[in-house]
Amino acid sequence: MTFDWQIAPLNRDLIPEIQERIDQKTKPLGALGQLEQLALQIALVQQRKRLSIERPLMLVFAADHGIAEEGVSIAPSSVTQQMVRNFLAGGAAINCFCRTNHIPLKVIDAGIKDEIKPAPSALIAQRIAAGTRNFAHEPAMTLAQAERALILGKEFAEGEIAAGSNLLAFGEMGIGNSSSAAAILAAISNAPVETCVGLGTGINDQQLAKKIALVTQAVARIEDKSPLTILCEVGGFEIAQICGAMLATAQAGRLIVVDGFIVTAAALLAVTINPHARDYMIFAHQSEEAGHQLMLRLLDAKPLLNLGLRLGEGTGAALAMPIIQAAVSFYNQMATFESAGVKV
Amino acid sequence: MTFDWQIAPLNRDLIPEIQERIDQKTKPLGALGQLEQLALQIALVQQRKRLSIERPLMLVFAADHGIAEEGVSIAPSSVTQQMVRNFLAGGAAINCFCRTNHIPLKVIDAGIKDEIKPAPSALIAQRIAAGTRNFAHEPAMTLAQAERALILGKEFAEGEIAAGSNLLAFGEMGIGNSSSAAAILAAISNAPVETCVGLGTGINDQQLAKKIALVTQAVARIEDKSPLTILCEVGGFEIAQICGAMLATAQAGRLIVVDGFIVTAAALLAVTINPHARDYMIFAHQSEEAGHQLMLRLLDAKPLLNLGLRLGEGTGAALAMPIIQAAVSFYNQMATFESAGVKV
Repeated sequence: MTFDWQIAPLNRDLIPEIQERIDQKTKPLGALGQLEQLALQIALVQQRKRLSIERPLMLVFAADHGIAEEGVSIAPSSVTQQMVRNFLAGGAAINCFCRTNHIPLKVIDAGIKDEIKPAPSALIAQRIAAGTRNFAHEPAMTLAQAERALILGKEFAEGEIAAGSNLLAFGEMGIGNSSSAAAILAAISNAPVETCVGLGTGINDQQLAKKIALVTQAVARIEDKSPLTILCEVGGFEIAQICGAMLATAQAGRLIVVDGFIVTAAALLAVTINPHARDYMIFAHQSEEAGHQLMLRLLDAKPLLNLGLRLGEGTGAALAMPIIQAAVSFYNQMATFESAGVKV
Repeated sequence: MTFDWQIAPLNRDLIPEIQERIDQKTKPLGALGQLEQLALQIALVQQRKRLSIERPLMLVFAADHGIAEEGVSIAPSSVTQQMVRNFLAGGAAINCFCRTNHIPLKVIDAGIKDEIKPAPSALIAQRIAAGTRNFAHEPAMTLAQAERALILGKEFAEGEIAAGSNLLAFGEMGIGNSSSAAAILAAISNAPVETCVGLGTGINDQQLAKKIALVTQAVARIEDKSPLTILCEVGGFEIAQICGAMLATAQAGRLIVVDGFIVTAAALLAVTINPHARDYMIFAHQSEEAGHQLMLRLLDAKPLLNLGLRLGEGTGAALAMPIIQAAVSFYNQMATFESAGVKV
């Protein structure tokens, strides 16, 4: 790598003190289940008595993938741009969920095939190229492109953190990107490709067989399994920018909310680059996509939701936000046995 | 029964029209998983194009249980009143989650052991008695008490619905009530008592063995397994009032949000009294309590959350509210392929 990611691991010496605070709340020990673990993680990240989620943001990175020309998706690449327009118009699922949960949404063009002209003011243009190359036959991107994408993601996250955000949630859009995520998973995990590749948003058996064959072929080509090489060979511009943004968020000691299969592939790359990044990640949901469980296992993550979603966009992350707020709320506001006069 | 519950089943002829509307949204078919089934249910209940959750309320019913004198809980009966005071002071987990999710909370004394005097203005007094009798040895309540509890619950729900609520969420507090809920489950299901009884909020193995023995003894006594007899024999005043309130809510064609093990026992009774009540129920979460899965199976329910909670109070129901709002939001607001110009 041409740059260093300095990420501080969480100070686990603080666990007993935080746990004691949780255990004094007016509830049986452990009765709030995963919310307690979540509050503990947030308290370790924020290292203060009163936790808070400040200026939370949903960042949706969009890009196109050369592999889409193989017909391994339910829709053509043109749909990436159409969905970006839908995001900007407020009509997609991610818009609805961000609205109901009061999360501002920013949409970043990391390299969609059909550039939107004239550029809408609400669209953040960080285009690396008009989509990646077809990774079935050649590297998806050059080293210079991968590095530039990581840096653009990093700088974007740094800007939002400087503006006051202490939690960044990530979403994505990109026809073909479940092939890229599956290839990243296969390359990092060395698991059989069939266990990494899934139906995406709903391809048929024939398309699935082809998807497996193409991913197998691409992964076989990767000799040096360093994260940067993997990114160049089979990555996507949105995945690379998300990865860079996640590493910067962890570096700044802020919280990362991880959506489904594609965003978790970016998280897996980030954690492979610097394992301490894991400490700052909250996993929002279990996707229906086959390989997602394996990714979560590799990351030792138990997600908050399991609603059978297979849409991406950041929808799972947006839906998990109220649960994160609830963890903060019980940690800050719940009475103790002593203060409430409850004697068990 | 001395009164009739007239509950209209949902008009399932409307399913194709509603499903068509969901399928036109800009997302792959079925990609929003359980949220799609939830939107379908809400649309069937509300029978209108624009869904809405109006004046949602969290109703927490509290009562004491004679069985608590057997030492089958982690805390003494006095904690019921102490926790009711905690609810009124805003310091419990349910207060935190209702606040973060903007759900007004009402607390009902359905028969706690130690009446709070002077009665705080925020506490709704619908006391049947100072706790039930110890069902290990005698019926928990008389038929007159059970009927009065059902009617008080019914009238309370009717009042809130008349005031504009179209969704009522239910929670509970009552030391000993997981024994009551387990006995209700065992009586209705005929399943082995050991599969119905769990650790409640955290008893030890010895207490668990005793709890199983006492519930077995009580259930063996019930010859006529009608819901009203079961309620009299092993029920609780909070469970009875919740049951009556749920039946009234279904009768009015409004939505019911079901919390964990105890509230699901009330739901099971309600559905046993009138199976159409099921149509109006949204199951919020999968509790850690052993018997809850069996209850959910009997009710053919897949809950929205599985966060390892075992607290009750309505906490799972409060945490599920944003997901219900998200289902309404995508159904109302999401663009169609046609309106968004997305061509797959």
